[in-house]
Amino acid sequence: MADEAPFQFLHNEVIQYIYKSAESGETENGRNIAKLENMGFRVGQGLIERLTKDSARFKDELDIMKFVCKDFWTCVFKKQIDNLRTNHQGIYVLQDNKFRLLSQLSAGKQYLEHAPKYLAFTCGLVRGALSNLGVKSIVTAEVSIMPACKFQIMIQKM
Amino acid sequence: MADEAPFQFLHNEVIQYIYKSAESGETENGRNIAKLENMGFRVGQGLIERLTKDSARFKDELDIMKFVCKDFWTCVFKKQIDNLRTNHQGIYVLQDNKFRLLSQLSAGKQYLEHAPKYLAFTCGLVRGALSNLGVKSIVTAEVSIMPACKFQIMIQKM
Repeated sequence: MADEAPFQFLHNEVIQYIYKSAESGETENGRNIAKLENMGFRVGQGLIERLTKDSARFKDELDIMKFVCKDFWTCVFKKQIDNLRTNHQGIYVLQDNKFRLLSQLSAGKQYLEHAPKYLAFTCGLVRGALSNLGVKSIVTAEVSIMPACKFQIMIQKM
Repeated sequence: MADEAPFQFLHNEVIQYIYKSAESGETENGRNIAKLENMGFRVGQGLIERLTKDSARFKDELDIMKFVCKDFWTCVFKKQIDNLRTNHQGIYVLQDNKFRLLSQLSAGKQYLEHAPKYLAFTCGLVRGALSNLGVKSIVTAEVSIMPACKFQIMIQKM
């Protein structure tokens, strides 16, 4: 019961803290998002290191993505990604039909504008995990109907 | 495996973030500790609310403390408090012989000075949980040999 609750509550507090401690204003929003994304990046790096310490080497990029969708997602969100799609040219879309960090928000349309700050940390989380597995990427998120959520990963060829 | 890891890593990042974003200087340390304590307080409030939503009413103060040592601690740290003592006059000492948020720190004496910032959040966590159960308290922590740790709770009679 409530296994992921400490993480969820702490995550919410971090968002509140960062938004409250910053000056108000339009330009600040971008900076706050970046701060959350960076925090997620470092958490993702640490987590993936711990999760893969006894794993065999991954076969390819798709193999890595499957690990992120399954083991990594379960570790953080206590469920797997519901759907993974790819165009086989470096774009992956991970769909979570009940994303935990959004599930405490009301689904009303008027709250949709608040979604980005609840997604920034997780975008960073994925980017950090991939980065430590040698995959450079850009990760964005979009919500159409809460709490469903899509993360798009664009691989940056090196 | 690594069930509490997301929480641990996020907790570490929050400490880093708060210490990095503050100005350096002796006086700032107290403020950072207070920020972490406050964050813990609110997380504790939220968590205890969720954990006790189907519980029967607690018999007395000791009953509340036992719940904190067992259910609450297990929810956050995946283990119970190892020892609970009280003087039956409003002071409780909770001992955790392997406190998770310290277990990633080296046990060397030179790191002992860093312990307070790893304990502040949890002091707030306990204070917040008790507060929502109607018990006003002051919570402090001390470490003698890492990662063992004692939390002292002084009940404030109202």
